[in-house]
Amino acid sequence: MSTTAPAYSDTVDPRVEALVTELIGRVADKWTLLVLEALEEHGRLRFTQVGREVPGISQKMLTQTLREMERDGFLTRTVHPVVPPRVDYELTALSRSLGAAFCGVWHWAGEHLDAVARARVAFDARE
Amino acid sequence: MSTTAPAYSDTVDPRVEALVTELIGRVADKWTLLVLEALEEHGRLRFTQVGREVPGISQKMLTQTLREMERDGFLTRTVHPVVPPRVDYELTALSRSLGAAFCGVWHWAGEHLDAVARARVAFDARE
Repeated sequence: MSTTAPAYSDTVDPRVEALVTELIGRVADKWTLLVLEALEEHGRLRFTQVGREVPGISQKMLTQTLREMERDGFLTRTVHPVVPPRVDYELTALSRSLGAAFCGVWHWAGEHLDAVARARVAFDARE
Repeated sequence: MSTTAPAYSDTVDPRVEALVTELIGRVADKWTLLVLEALEEHGRLRFTQVGREVPGISQKMLTQTLREMERDGFLTRTVHPVVPPRVDYELTALSRSLGAAFCGVWHWAGEHLDAVARARVAFDARE
């Protein structure tokens, strides 16, 4: 992504482009989307509960993903002063709207999976 | 993306997941999206015209991107039997709908750029 793209810079704010690139990279990484999905489905969850909803994620990766999401304003982290300490995570309006935006791409893929597969078969047969 | 994610496999068709991952990777690569944008704006274009609308793209990358997009059913390639030969590229209904789906993510990024920036500043100040 180090290439300059003058065609874009005419119309798209480079900061928007950088953020989109970053978001796409984050989602391609999958953990953010899985955490987002878990919190969307269950509302407020504790650290261990998030981990249970995202099987396969390591403690380290879960910590890192939650921290990045908190930094981006995607979730709130509430520490309850109890023994043992309890920490809750919850989505914000910001991340809910991002989830909804990405939903369109997932929906498209589900709807057009067969069309893409058919196009590939036809193309490969022609070549 | 080699990690298994049982949380998804319960609800999402793994073929859909694979396609989304692939699409996201393709878009993160940027050339497909730039070619898509050029053809969306101008309708039908010749090879050299596409190249002009996507500055910075090499001949080789343009050829490869157009070929992949044709294979996926994202564009039609029309060869006109004239001298010198003329080849036109045009989007299909399939790629127009994909462009529309990704539009939501771009739109989100544009709308929420400042909110994410503010969240990061606030987080970094707390740490």
